[in-house]
Amino acid sequence: MDYNKAAIELHKRLKGKIEVTARAETNNKDELSTAYTPGVAEPCREIAKDIRKVYDYTRKGNLVAVVTDGSAVLGLGNIGPEAGMPVMEGKCVLFKNFAGVDAFPICLDTNDVDEIVETVKNIAPTFGGINLEDISAPRCFEIERRLQEELDIPVFHDDQHGTAIVVSAGIINALRVVNKKIEDAQIVINGAGSAGIAICRMLMNMGSENIILVDKIGAICENMNGLNSEQEKMSKITNRDGKTGSLADVMQDADVFIGVSAPNIVTKEMVESMADDAIVFAMANPTPEIMPDLAKEAGARVVGTGRSDFPNQINNVIAFPGIFRGALDAMASSITEEMKIAACKAIAGLISDEELSEDYIIPKAFDPRVSPAVAEAVAKAAK
Amino acid sequence: MDYNKAAIELHKRLKGKIEVTARAETNNKDELSTAYTPGVAEPCREIAKDIRKVYDYTRKGNLVAVVTDGSAVLGLGNIGPEAGMPVMEGKCVLFKNFAGVDAFPICLDTNDVDEIVETVKNIAPTFGGINLEDISAPRCFEIERRLQEELDIPVFHDDQHGTAIVVSAGIINALRVVNKKIEDAQIVINGAGSAGIAICRMLMNMGSENIILVDKIGAICENMNGLNSEQEKMSKITNRDGKTGSLADVMQDADVFIGVSAPNIVTKEMVESMADDAIVFAMANPTPEIMPDLAKEAGARVVGTGRSDFPNQINNVIAFPGIFRGALDAMASSITEEMKIAACKAIAGLISDEELSEDYIIPKAFDPRVSPAVAEAVAKAAK
Repeated sequence: MDYNKAAIELHKRLKGKIEVTARAETNNKDELSTAYTPGVAEPCREIAKDIRKVYDYTRKGNLVAVVTDGSAVLGLGNIGPEAGMPVMEGKCVLFKNFAGVDAFPICLDTNDVDEIVETVKNIAPTFGGINLEDISAPRCFEIERRLQEELDIPVFHDDQHGTAIVVSAGIINALRVVNKKIEDAQIVINGAGSAGIAICRMLMNMGSENIILVDKIGAICENMNGLNSEQEKMSKITNRDGKTGSLADVMQDADVFIGVSAPNIVTKEMVESMADDAIVFAMANPTPEIMPDLAKEAGARVVGTGRSDFPNQINNVIAFPGIFRGALDAMASSITEEMKIAACKAIAGLISDEELSEDYIIPKAFDPRVSPAVAEAVAKAAK
Repeated sequence: MDYNKAAIELHKRLKGKIEVTARAETNNKDELSTAYTPGVAEPCREIAKDIRKVYDYTRKGNLVAVVTDGSAVLGLGNIGPEAGMPVMEGKCVLFKNFAGVDAFPICLDTNDVDEIVETVKNIAPTFGGINLEDISAPRCFEIERRLQEELDIPVFHDDQHGTAIVVSAGIINALRVVNKKIEDAQIVINGAGSAGIAICRMLMNMGSENIILVDKIGAICENMNGLNSEQEKMSKITNRDGKTGSLADVMQDADVFIGVSAPNIVTKEMVESMADDAIVFAMANPTPEIMPDLAKEAGARVVGTGRSDFPNQINNVIAFPGIFRGALDAMASSITEEMKIAACKAIAGLISDEELSEDYIIPKAFDPRVSPAVAEAVAKAAK
């Protein structure tokens, strides 16, 4: 199926993949006077007296803003807010179809960090949560941090944490397959942008002690030149043996390779140099760092990609809808590390020892158990 | 019917009068790959090449933001963005139910003019139009003016222009009933806030030459002290005979009284002092400046109010849905005076000479002819 052609046809036909619909009827005077003036003044007065009632009387408690500045849309780069809209609408569709969350795209006409923070703060009263999307690093870190500090609703940058949660769930189960412990596994993450750093942090929170982050300049180690502020922070807590060199150098004897980088940059030889029972997550899209069959030939035991046409697809859609569902249900004021770890374990835990195999480490995107399980775990962790 | 009680029940039951729904299915791999990655990249690329295609491939062309800062909600005053939400959601319901426009509430956590302008500009790429709502005067004037200058989508402050359009349509038809010309009619408008000033401007654009604006300080005339900037502008173009004094003073011999002010401030005597065949629009809500039966007793020939339990209800719902429908259909970059006048004439013109009477000068809120007629006239005027 030619997805590009099909997508143009679909988008042209629908003229928008989301719609704002009315839940109240206004067919006669009584209905109009109840949904609107004069009756509507009464819920207004009650919320003015007790602001928490906004969750009882309005859509706020089920509404998430999908916020972008269009600066890092898919693999397309800084294409701007209008061109980013089809992706944001798509994200809103997934929120609704997978978890019943009302999500609305907010595409911002600014790339300025202060303006983005100010704008999102200003529109926040409408929403029960903020999903940041496709905002380029390192701005995304500061934007998320400041919004988390200043808002009392959950703020979640899916490119970081959604990815980190799903990857970590996959890694946990892959380690189950090869019978290695996360504490002992030597992990190499290639691509020290927002996703790579978030994956690194998540794995460390789950017990990992040996991670090397690699970027275009090579293995990231302390006191290195050319790091941005986030990479510098990571340099102080990763690669404690101070290994230097290229990706090929640090992949030698590694147990796990995680790529969130570029197509075809991992060779067969590099995988061959890894430890026995190697785990390879090659998630560059649409072309992975190494094709799964080649990685397998080179001795990798478990291989995951972002693609739906190979086993073990690492897909954010199994995380973010359930995470926000759970956070909204719990009326959480933030999405904590505990909630993220709960989501990760809920995803991994859906696959029993009997089902678990090299080719089945992560639930499928359409597995109907996923969103409810994630939502329940997240809501529980929020309490 | 107790609308307050019914409204609380309705709002509690619905938990939000609007909903964001998905127009695209994502039940299997092909649907997911078409509505979202990888297929979605193709419409993104096309919009990046030609930004106008955002109207073909996304919801922008049917989406209106209903923007408030909660500073002048109904008669409730500055109750804040959360407490204003039920009104904004109600407005969105009317947009959808009366004209198929997708409207979304944006309740702002700031009363600062610069911040409001900046925020609305920043979120504008998502929307095809901006409806400003319940923002207090005189800030609303500057906010609207600056947004109109800086955005290429329609910006419309309904409390000003929607009200002005419906009142003017009513006045035109009331003058038809009493057989007076707008050029000759002496008009008194009580309440020189956003609505009163917009009504004044609109009537002047339609030919009125004798209007006196009155506020708490009395009849507004040139070089008077205590006027805000907008009132000062109006003092230079209204009340050309320089009449001074109280509301009672200037109502003597007036042909038309229009009240957008406060309950019960017009007495029977004041109406008795007006010219023969007087027209009285007493639109304070829920209690008018003078009750219709009392105004009639005092000799008023045509009486309009904001209430649905008396004849001649002056209700914005007969204007704003059709106005935005027409502006969006025409992909208009603004709502011009011509478009407003076209809307006004379309509303007035729906009532034939045969139907026209003292008790039927304006179409009912539920008249199904209204929105399509307004939309058509507005779209035509936009071309």
